[in-house]
Amino acid sequence: MNANNPPIRFGGDYNPEQWPEETWVQDVALMREAGVNLVTLGVFSWSLIEPREGEFNFGWLDRVINLLWSAGISVDLATATASPPPWLVAKHPEIRPITESGMKLAQGSRQAYCPSSPVYRAATVRLVEALVKRYHNHAAVVLWHVNNEYACHVGRCYCDVSVASFRRWLKSRYGSIKRLNEAWGTAFWSQQYGTFDEIDAPSQAPYLRNPLQLLDFDRFSSDELLECYRSEVRAIRAVDSETPITTNFMGYFKPLDYWKWAQEVDIVSDDSYPDPVDPSAPMWAALSRDLMRSLRRGQPWLLMEQAPGAVNWRPVNALPRPGQMRALSYQAVARGADGILFFQWRQSVQGAEKFHTGMLPHSGVDTQRWREVRQLGNELSELSRSDGIVGSPTRASVAIVFDWDSWWAIEQSGLPATLSYMDEIFDWYSAFTVRGCTVDFVRQTDELVGYGVVVVPTLFAATDEALSNFDDYVERGGSLVVTYCSAITDEELVVRTGGYLGALQDTLGIWIEELDPPVEQPSRDGVDEERQLSVTSDLFGGAGGASRWAESIRVTSAQVVASFTGVRSGPAVTRRSSQGEAWYIGTNLDDVAQGALVDAVIDASTINPHPLARPGLEVVERGELTFLINHGGTPTSVDPTLLTGQSRDEPLIHLEPWGVAILRRG
Amino acid sequence: MNANNPPIRFGGDYNPEQWPEETWVQDVALMREAGVNLVTLGVFSWSLIEPREGEFNFGWLDRVINLLWSAGISVDLATATASPPPWLVAKHPEIRPITESGMKLAQGSRQAYCPSSPVYRAATVRLVEALVKRYHNHAAVVLWHVNNEYACHVGRCYCDVSVASFRRWLKSRYGSIKRLNEAWGTAFWSQQYGTFDEIDAPSQAPYLRNPLQLLDFDRFSSDELLECYRSEVRAIRAVDSETPITTNFMGYFKPLDYWKWAQEVDIVSDDSYPDPVDPSAPMWAALSRDLMRSLRRGQPWLLMEQAPGAVNWRPVNALPRPGQMRALSYQAVARGADGILFFQWRQSVQGAEKFHTGMLPHSGVDTQRWREVRQLGNELSELSRSDGIVGSPTRASVAIVFDWDSWWAIEQSGLPATLSYMDEIFDWYSAFTVRGCTVDFVRQTDELVGYGVVVVPTLFAATDEALSNFDDYVERGGSLVVTYCSAITDEELVVRTGGYLGALQDTLGIWIEELDPPVEQPSRDGVDEERQLSVTSDLFGGAGGASRWAESIRVTSAQVVASFTGVRSGPAVTRRSSQGEAWYIGTNLDDVAQGALVDAVIDASTINPHPLARPGLEVVERGELTFLINHGGTPTSVDPTLLTGQSRDEPLIHLEPWGVAILRRG
Amino acid sequence: MNANNPPIRFGGDYNPEQWPEETWVQDVALMREAGVNLVTLGVFSWSLIEPREGEFNFGWLDRVINLLWSAGISVDLATATASPPPWLVAKHPEIRPITESGMKLAQGSRQAYCPSSPVYRAATVRLVEALVKRYHNHAAVVLWHVNNEYACHVGRCYCDVSVASFRRWLKSRYGSIKRLNEAWGTAFWSQQYGTFDEIDAPSQAPYLRNPLQLLDFDRFSSDELLECYRSEVRAIRAVDSETPITTNFMGYFKPLDYWKWAQEVDIVSDDSYPDPVDPSAPMWAALSRDLMRSLRRGQPWLLMEQAPGAVNWRPVNALPRPGQMRALSYQAVARGADGILFFQWRQSVQGAEKFHTGMLPHSGVDTQRWREVRQLGNELSELSRSDGIVGSPTRASVAIVFDWDSWWAIEQSGLPATLSYMDEIFDWYSAFTVRGCTVDFVRQTDELVGYGVVVVPTLFAATDEALSNFDDYVERGGSLVVTYCSAITDEELVVRTGGYLGALQDTLGIWIEELDPPVEQPSRDGVDEERQLSVTSDLFGGAGGASRWAESIRVTSAQVVASFTGVRSGPAVTRRSSQGEAWYIGTNLDDVAQGALVDAVIDASTINPHPLARPGLEVVERGELTFLINHGGTPTSVDPTLLTGQSRDEPLIHLEPWGVAILRRG
Repeated sequence: MNANNPPIRFGGDYNPEQWPEETWVQDVALMREAGVNLVTLGVFSWSLIEPREGEFNFGWLDRVINLLWSAGISVDLATATASPPPWLVAKHPEIRPITESGMKLAQGSRQAYCPSSPVYRAATVRLVEALVKRYHNHAAVVLWHVNNEYACHVGRCYCDVSVASFRRWLKSRYGSIKRLNEAWGTAFWSQQYGTFDEIDAPSQAPYLRNPLQLLDFDRFSSDELLECYRSEVRAIRAVDSETPITTNFMGYFKPLDYWKWAQEVDIVSDDSYPDPVDPSAPMWAALSRDLMRSLRRGQPWLLMEQAPGAVNWRPVNALPRPGQMRALSYQAVARGADGILFFQWRQSVQGAEKFHTGMLPHSGVDTQRWREVRQLGNELSELSRSDGIVGSPTRASVAIVFDWDSWWAIEQSGLPATLSYMDEIFDWYSAFTVRGCTVDFVRQTDELVGYGVVVVPTLFAATDEALSNFDDYVERGGSLVVTYCSAITDEELVVRTGGYLGALQDTLGIWIEELDPPVEQPSRDGVDEERQLSVTSDLFGGAGGASRWAESIRVTSAQVVASFTGVRSGPAVTRRSSQGEAWYIGTNLDDVAQGALVDAVIDASTINPHPLARPGLEVVERGELTFLINHGGTPTSVDPTLLTGQSRDEPLIHLEPWGVAILRRG
Repeated sequence: MNANNPPIRFGGDYNPEQWPEETWVQDVALMREAGVNLVTLGVFSWSLIEPREGEFNFGWLDRVINLLWSAGISVDLATATASPPPWLVAKHPEIRPITESGMKLAQGSRQAYCPSSPVYRAATVRLVEALVKRYHNHAAVVLWHVNNEYACHVGRCYCDVSVASFRRWLKSRYGSIKRLNEAWGTAFWSQQYGTFDEIDAPSQAPYLRNPLQLLDFDRFSSDELLECYRSEVRAIRAVDSETPITTNFMGYFKPLDYWKWAQEVDIVSDDSYPDPVDPSAPMWAALSRDLMRSLRRGQPWLLMEQAPGAVNWRPVNALPRPGQMRALSYQAVARGADGILFFQWRQSVQGAEKFHTGMLPHSGVDTQRWREVRQLGNELSELSRSDGIVGSPTRASVAIVFDWDSWWAIEQSGLPATLSYMDEIFDWYSAFTVRGCTVDFVRQTDELVGYGVVVVPTLFAATDEALSNFDDYVERGGSLVVTYCSAITDEELVVRTGGYLGALQDTLGIWIEELDPPVEQPSRDGVDEERQLSVTSDLFGGAGGASRWAESIRVTSAQVVASFTGVRSGPAVTRRSSQGEAWYIGTNLDDVAQGALVDAVIDASTINPHPLARPGLEVVERGELTFLINHGGTPTSVDPTLLTGQSRDEPLIHLEPWGVAILRRG
Repeated sequence: MNANNPPIRFGGDYNPEQWPEETWVQDVALMREAGVNLVTLGVFSWSLIEPREGEFNFGWLDRVINLLWSAGISVDLATATASPPPWLVAKHPEIRPITESGMKLAQGSRQAYCPSSPVYRAATVRLVEALVKRYHNHAAVVLWHVNNEYACHVGRCYCDVSVASFRRWLKSRYGSIKRLNEAWGTAFWSQQYGTFDEIDAPSQAPYLRNPLQLLDFDRFSSDELLECYRSEVRAIRAVDSETPITTNFMGYFKPLDYWKWAQEVDIVSDDSYPDPVDPSAPMWAALSRDLMRSLRRGQPWLLMEQAPGAVNWRPVNALPRPGQMRALSYQAVARGADGILFFQWRQSVQGAEKFHTGMLPHSGVDTQRWREVRQLGNELSELSRSDGIVGSPTRASVAIVFDWDSWWAIEQSGLPATLSYMDEIFDWYSAFTVRGCTVDFVRQTDELVGYGVVVVPTLFAATDEALSNFDDYVERGGSLVVTYCSAITDEELVVRTGGYLGALQDTLGIWIEELDPPVEQPSRDGVDEERQLSVTSDLFGGAGGASRWAESIRVTSAQVVASFTGVRSGPAVTRRSSQGEAWYIGTNLDDVAQGALVDAVIDASTINPHPLARPGLEVVERGELTFLINHGGTPTSVDPTLLTGQSRDEPLIHLEPWGVAILRRG
């Protein structure tokens, strides 16, 4: 135990403007009681800080920051630009965003701005300049929190200003209209453009849009909000070159390519709201946390928002059961978080989020909610002091390639089947995670050596460089798992003809004759039952189920591991062994079959399952610590000697539902 | 039997303009045969009465009124303003209403006007003035029928004219923008307004809107149509100070606060279209009729429209079975109606409602439809003559608090769960009605003394005055039943902190730690089955089911009547006995458990179940008469001595399905 | 075998502009290998042919046509007007169509034009003139292909230009506004129009629109696109009076009245995409093919597009199983097609349809797809040479009345029940087709003598002339089958009062008291189970099921064939025998009951079932050939002597699933 170990950040969003100042004093006292050491201020305070154009009102903010700091509580100060004030929208109604169907969204909720609006951007910069000038020297301010949950509600705008900006973006990407026409394949449906000025945003059209126009609009829209972020960062850095800057992400979030974004934040922070009644939610949360850690190649991150109780945006909003919030908090720490924060400190009594629980709920301190928050705050304080967890690494043996381009492209209309990119990622993520193999996410061209297994799920839009990267990995002894619908096209969505897969044909020893997804939904009068997919393999002792996807695989130098049976035939899973192993999975196996396959992949690789891992029991190692979390819904016990290799004298560790045990290794 | 007893009004909407004048003569003869004594004229005749701006064509209307009157048939004369004529919309396209999503609705259907439009209002006043001047002295005209089914299709308009009017309404309500900011809680999401001119209607926004903005827009929209009504009434009363005025309501109808409206009509009238195949429809119809009677504190009302056969606006439109229309007509009379009218007299052969049956259907008089209409007309004539039913009271022992503010507020997004206000009302209404306890509806601050039981279902937005009113009622010996989700906020939707319920905490002897609704719909992969709600109580002999809602109730001075079991624990139903009884119901009990609870409430109160009531057999007392109606679908019989207390010699009364018996008491 | 017999056309859409010219040479070689003799060129080439306004680029098209012709391949040359180029939409954004809800559709997909736009029409005529001048003398060009799939995505436009055109169309139809007011029944909901300028398109309105306004807008919209077609035809015929002209239809396609259209093409051509996993798809395809043949009274037609593999516009796109495409191709030939073409030749690698399979798929020639295409091409070449099938007739014994007015009218809102016109047609079509009785479709006033049975399914909007035509047919000995919901109105949607059916009351010997459809969907809490329909008849040995529709039928001179039982009673099916037979079917019988009824109808008529026909085995006779196609999913065998009447020595014919046998008759 070392008193100098840095503390885990603990706290949440604080909106003092919703309360009289006498409440602030009570708040700070309770924060100390709960171990709060960081609060986020000002996320939605623009209309209070700048009640009229150019007129700033900082007094209340001065007072609250000083009050917090006097109690030793640091501040994550927001730039307050997340929602423009009524006066700005009233003066410039053109900043209201327009949807794909042409609807102009109203002010009076939040985030009602067009990301391309020069009016909005100029107003944010002026506000940020004023804020930074006033507070950058305040010792309390340890983090700048730019805007809030970019793209949460408005990730795409189709107004004329956005279209003009899209055209500039395209011109910068393609250089000439001729090159754009080639890339977009406009020798189709009379789409050949004469000038960039003829191009529109892909708003609602009579039928399918150009796929690359859609993908480029996704890329542009992510970049356009990143430009908003950058303009705020520039305003901060002009004055304050030191205080770290973040903006809160939202886990696996389709609208923004966080690989690009993460390069421009100093620390990744994440908002995470698992559904308390969804049995798969802890696994999805783990995925989110591993992604956050991976975005900056293992750098610890902050859990910026989670709910201490129920949220208010689902049709019905379940309370977490006793211990559930704590378990998910430890999961975050185990998977690399150096801070656990909540939305929000004191539950509101007015406004659209008044039924979103706070650390301090409507009914006060004699409540389960408050007791759980206080307990967690004090536990985390103790843990960081005694164990020096902050800054320590979480190491992974498996890498999964995660690619926003493929996500955007594979969920367009007009494909052979309707796939969910995240379901594909999740199936492979959970198969390894449940075995205690920690997973990193990587980009398609990232260095892969060092990982025992690399999984490439449905990497639809794979670049030539990526295919070469995967081949190198196998050549250097790695175990590569490629799944269906990968390398169908390149990054401009041009089909890789002659059997798909491009250069991976050699790596995998196969080519694909045809894509042949099963129809699982009846079309008019029901479906021919013979179309149910099935496979057979020695690997899983005979027959197995499959769904979602199938294809005609033609083997050149691979072995067949599993074959289709029934109405389809031919290879379903193949393996080519060379320096390393190259597996190809041509269908979505059912859980049992996929489990057997993953066991075989692990067997043939350099990695091992964790000895304590089992379904419902999450096992993660961070630094010197091993975290055990019981998500299984029933009490369970764990034999710690399996971990330590010590003699049998150590007592079993009992874990209640949502129980957590932390073991120090070695 | 007394020939001077006033007749029950019988008739329907008559649209002579759809037929050649020779048909009118036949119509009047058939009306006499059926006992018709009142017809509604001119509801949609604007474009015929005023075919060009300022040019009136009354000849046809003169002739038809005279013809009717010559046969002794009175007229409910419509102001004809329900649908503006094409020339008005063509000249002033700005009167077309705009939806929440910004769509401008087309002319060519009906009700295509913005309620705030000064152009529309001026045109209606001019038309009404002309009509009233011409007909107010005509002896046939016994009732003015203003407009038609206000808000049936266009209850909310989001155009600029409406927004300007909304701002004026807000200024009038709040006085200053500072006060509005406080009430709306705009220190949230940067919503602080500088002036009223910055406020918009709550059209579609990126995310949740301000809850009080939404509620105020509901209040404003109801008021704005009431202003339309008032402007027509002023035009009538400028000329005719005597003839009563009505506008037809639509039962439990969310867009309009009928408590406010009913104060401004001389007689309540209602349009009612129960679905013939819905087994719960007769109970919903009863609810509607009791609400209509309650709106003017017991004053008899008119059933202005019902269908003699099938309607044409459901996906499939069922015919009523033999006797069904008659049964529902007697139900209306029993529950306070002094008139039974239909839409419409002669079924149309053209236009959008030509498959809405008429009293005289397409196939003429040799039809089941015509025979049923004629029979009912003659029966009602006989009943009113012999029994003097017109004007007599229907008395209730139970009151249910009904509140449009709570209806609007509880069905907003962003609440802990998704509740249907009318389902909550219905569950309590039907539990008492099926026991033969007649129910009045009351406002939250109405006098309650005189009722044996008062039920307050999900009164989400309860005023301080209401809470005091309920407490007084218990103090004076009443039995009060409050259900979950009541008094969560005040009328400005500010949460009542410290345990919700406000002053009712003392009345009920409880406070609420937390709201904990069950999730009954799977979120992603299915729901943890332990989350199914269950309760236990001696009252219903052990275990019972529950759904929709749960909460953590903390008891101070109440007894626990039922408790949650399974994944939840603690009180589910409580009772505090003082001068009276104060019950609190913290979940939606299943039918059996709720039945047992209602029996206990009745036992502990001053009221009694009706001796003849049983499921499927509706029993209502009006004046000296007891009405028995068999909704049960099978023949049944009733022992009348249970009612009269006479000896056993009286024969059993047999009731076929939809059969009706009318007994004169004692 | 006769080498002079004309060949069946075989080929598909070819988009050489998507490929480098060296690929063209390879394409032509492979076309020859597959027996291709006709390709469609230029369907979406506008932006390439006219890259800037008035500037034409024909070089590439010259080269490809010459190359094809040098290999003996003919060209179906498209007018290239199906999708306007970006420069046209950018210069004239007003040509973008507007939807019913007011949304302006974007350019960048296809077909983004308002059919009424004078700008669009002028630009198409200019393009067609240039094309025709250049190519009308080229020997390769054997067919003009005007536009493409008119109305596929934009069949209705609600912009101001369309509204103005609609008003002109109405003025031309009705002459005076007085006549329009009478026809539309505007003495209803204040809809009386003062001038044509007050009339709008039926865009979204508060409630139900005027039914005849809707029907007239359907008629107008079909006519308006026909005007587009005509303007292109005029431009062609100004230069080229000989080459036949077509535009590709889409089977039973609601937006366009193909009876009118077919009169203006020289040859009917059809696009047909049966869903490979829908077991009823072959029957729907047969229906489509019989309709195509019927449109020009038996004239052979072209299957202009079908998919050689999977399409890409369903949620999941199934591959046809081996033989399935071949079976459907022979079905088309048997039912009158003189050409079998595909969309498209070489599968695209870019653009929105790159996952729509081609004759030459992504993976090249070593594929199932290519082998099936090549086999079919060579078989058809052989068949046409040896059997002289081209031009020979397919003769039908049954006629079904098919009417776009009734289709449009019966699927409007506001009717007694929700019916699908095509389901009604299909049920009767399939009942005769499965018995090997070939069906023609006819208009309601077409000559009927010569058909053994005439079926009139749900002919909602029947003209007086039609009713007289049907009566004549029975008088001359025919067997007429009329089903429910027929002759409810005339062609102006005015109800036929006094029992519906008009003059058919005498023909059928019945009248209808009331329409009484069953409610099969629960309304609120579930449906009274007694409402399930049932019927009884000696015809099907007792009880039978029914659904969708019922009515109160009153018999005058008919016999009752089946009666309703249960909650309904009275006649369900009637028959009146005179010179011929007149059947009336008042409900939708289940399959068994309908089968028994159809057998009885056939027995009482002059026609016979085909001796080889049975469920799953399609039998069609064309010219001297009998086609047998096994759609049953399992192997089957056929005794040919049943057809030839020869002795038993002939061997059984074995048919695999999707197998085809072609027999030359005796």
